[in-house]
Amino acid sequence: MKMDKRVQISLMLDLYGELLTDKQKNIMDLYFNDDLSLAEISEINNTSRQATYDIINRCQKLLLQYEGKLKLMEKEMLVSKIKKEVQDKLIILKEEIFSEDELKIINSIIEDIKEI
Amino acid sequence: MKMDKRVQISLMLDLYGELLTDKQKNIMDLYFNDDLSLAEISEINNTSRQATYDIINRCQKLLLQYEGKLKLMEKEMLVSKIKKEVQDKLIILKEEIFSEDELKIINSIIEDIKEI
Repeated sequence: MKMDKRVQISLMLDLYGELLTDKQKNIMDLYFNDDLSLAEISEINNTSRQATYDIINRCQKLLLQYEGKLKLMEKEMLVSKIKKEVQDKLIILKEEIFSEDELKIINSIIEDIKEI
Repeated sequence: MKMDKRVQISLMLDLYGELLTDKQKNIMDLYFNDDLSLAEISEINNTSRQATYDIINRCQKLLLQYEGKLKLMEKEMLVSKIKKEVQDKLIILKEEIFSEDELKIINSIIEDIKEI
């Protein structure tokens, strides 16, 4: 799956953001999630555009390094794919089944899978 | 769930070991997975018992810090619990169902869940 780089960084920020400092995490959030410009972020932090750019650049590298080591994004995408397949199969099964008890079990499995 | 501290560290080593240096990871592996003594590890690394102890102590703290931030062990235990519940429900469902097609779907879901 090819993902937009922005989406990818935003996802890694969810997964590894806690490993950044509060300041780093905040700047990355403003840039990748709130879509603020370098100029806007620099103004908020009372710093230069270059300094903001450097932090963003460095943090992107850090996130990619963490992903290279822990592969949480890779795992998360695999788990999402499997969950989707399981949910699809459970829906097919539901259409085949008429007993109340069995339907109850299938519905509760569907709920369980959402929690994973 | 209360876990033995050794088991806990060994699990965290699986989850966060890649964030340690090769040397740290190796010493932690020897101590927590291969069950070697401090004296044995020190001999292998040609270093003092105190130096080995310090590395193990420091790495334990690092692993606990990573778990405090990323909570991968906590998540893994929750996912294991849900997977177990889902597998149990699928087995009940299998006993209720007689159609070949439905059984096939359930068996394939059971295989999918193992991959999560």
